[in-house]
Amino acid sequence: MLEEGEAFTPRFGADGLLTAVVTDAHDGAVLMLAHMNAASLRLTLETGIAHYWSRSRQALWMKGETSGNVQTVVEILTDCDQDAVLLRVQVAGDGPTCHTGRRSCFYRSITSDGTLAIRRG
Amino acid sequence: MLEEGEAFTPRFGADGLLTAVVTDAHDGAVLMLAHMNAASLRLTLETGIAHYWSRSRQALWMKGETSGNVQTVVEILTDCDQDAVLLRVQVAGDGPTCHTGRRSCFYRSITSDGTLAIRRG
Repeated sequence: MLEEGEAFTPRFGADGLLTAVVTDAHDGAVLMLAHMNAASLRLTLETGIAHYWSRSRQALWMKGETSGNVQTVVEILTDCDQDAVLLRVQVAGDGPTCHTGRRSCFYRSITSDGTLAIRRG
Repeated sequence: MLEEGEAFTPRFGADGLLTAVVTDAHDGAVLMLAHMNAASLRLTLETGIAHYWSRSRQALWMKGETSGNVQTVVEILTDCDQDAVLLRVQVAGDGPTCHTGRRSCFYRSITSDGTLAIRRG
């Protein structure tokens, strides 16, 4: 049922959170990883605008509420065991998602010597 | 430093884990979400083969050790605050990643009425 059924029964962790992977609906690029509690998931589904739970600030958070880089949800998927979601989004104005000003939070490769290298593109 | 430096200083959570997003290096499709402890991260970097930590089994786990669908790491990235990694992998024989036999664990959309629909493709 969890894997093949039509019922969406999200399995929040002991911390009350689901993990959310966020990709750009245009090209599938992974933009960020975030967390959702039940309230942020409900708000996201109701409004079509991505809302998360900030673990550091312990607060509900609409992505882009400060920066303007709001995420409109094109599609939201869940995984086989329903403890994660994948949001395919359109970022307002195709602006940056990372607070460092980059398009994606994943901008550094781990090299073979264990240091980090800024990735092109 | 955490965001712009060259030092890889992964920030494991209170549970000792990083979140790992896994994509197909061929086309960027999100295949699965998993977790890594320090030992699985080290093994992955040393061998170039993806190893994870199974939260349900509380055990180190080489993806594909049973199914044969081993993941060879093409690139591994970290995010701005170094509490997540993104693995770009090549799946042995382009086999399925999900234990249900599907290519990706994210095979169901959440519809507007809150039920799940199996996604085409």
